Amino acid sequence: MAAPLEFYFDFASPYGYIGAQRIDAIAARHGRRVDWRPMLLGAVFKVAGTQPLTEYPLKGQYSVHDFNRSAREHGIAFNMPEKFPIPTQAACRGTYWLKQTLPEKAVPFIKAAYAAYFVDGRDISSPEVVADIAEGLGIDRRAFMAGIESPEIKAKLREVTEDAIQQRGVFGSPFTFADGEPFWGADRLDMLDRWLEKGGW
Amino acid sequence: MAAPLEFYFDFASPYGYIGAQRIDAIAARHGRRVDWRPMLLGAVFKVAGTQPLTEYPLKGQYSVHDFNRSAREHGIAFNMPEKFPIPTQAACRGTYWLKQTLPEKAVPFIKAAYAAYFVDGRDISSPEVVADIAEGLGIDRRAFMAGIESPEIKAKLREVTEDAIQQRGVFGSPFTFADGEPFWGADRLDMLDRWLEKGGW
Repeated sequence: MAAPLEFYFDFASPYGYIGAQRIDAIAARHGRRVDWRPMLLGAVFKVAGTQPLTEYPLKGQYSVHDFNRSAREHGIAFNMPEKFPIPTQAACRGTYWLKQTLPEKAVPFIKAAYAAYFVDGRDISSPEVVADIAEGLGIDRRAFMAGIESPEIKAKLREVTEDAIQQRGVFGSPFTFADGEPFWGADRLDMLDRWLEKGGW
Repeated sequence: MAAPLEFYFDFASPYGYIGAQRIDAIAARHGRRVDWRPMLLGAVFKVAGTQPLTEYPLKGQYSVHDFNRSAREHGIAFNMPEKFPIPTQAACRGTYWLKQTLPEKAVPFIKAAYAAYFVDGRDISSPEVVADIAEGLGIDRRAFMAGIESPEIKAKLREVTEDAIQQRGVFGSPFTFADGEPFWGADRLDMLDRWLEKGGW
């Protein structure tokens, strides 16, 4: 089987959320799996010299319009959260703990956490809220809470984020690699689809 | 006939160039004309709090890779100019003078100036180079030079740029409006195409 698509994203990224609703189908069409890699966009912004889209004059307003328009086009439920952006350490760490401990629960957890924030407007910066989401998927709450507080999982998130920036050149979310070829943005997923179809160009 | 697509662009914008190769066909498919509106991206960046893509760490390298990849996908000739970015007042003013004086030459001039910069690597920041391009299209060189130096044409460019920023919310290039709906970027032209096809969503 071909190498998985490496899907880097931040849990507070609207385009990451939109991309997350589409990447599985694109991967499946080309016989690929998805390797889900949450990271901290705040650290990325510092190195890339950028800031959250919504904080730019002009671009900020357009972006919110485009989040909604892009979601609508693909039939994806989306509600711009009132509290935005938020820190996403708890959700990221939860993902890495699940990937290590209960890998079959990792993707359902990612989808549930994204929906909690971008559909239901829940504040997933809270470890308690994130633990509620995990518990809703049948995951042991105490083990989960201990996992996201463990030094090993905290280190894992730092490593993935550092590596994304320093080794992979990631500067936004979502950021997908197909056999090393980089595709930035939810709006590059159609190009990724064509790229996989044609074997590049 | 439906309202024209308003296509804002900067002559030093790689994605503006790529978009310029595609917008006519998209407009034609939907029975629209294109209103070509060159502007000064430098003024836009000041208000939008941004800078040329290539000047950002990480994003800069990706962007050059993506300019080439995007051009190749559509069979568009593209060579990243050595001198980049450049001021584009002369080409912008030439366009507005032609729109007023010889409107049938405006689009051929835009295409020729873009190709001079992004295919042949000529420095179109020079009024002399821009006048050479105009002359190559059978336009009287002295009238053209006088035109781009006229206070009226200089004021026109300032007005278009100011209006783009203040009234239309333009913060990048290309930036296309279809009946008021904004589409930022060459990579939003496929969405624009679908939007016109479906009458929005």
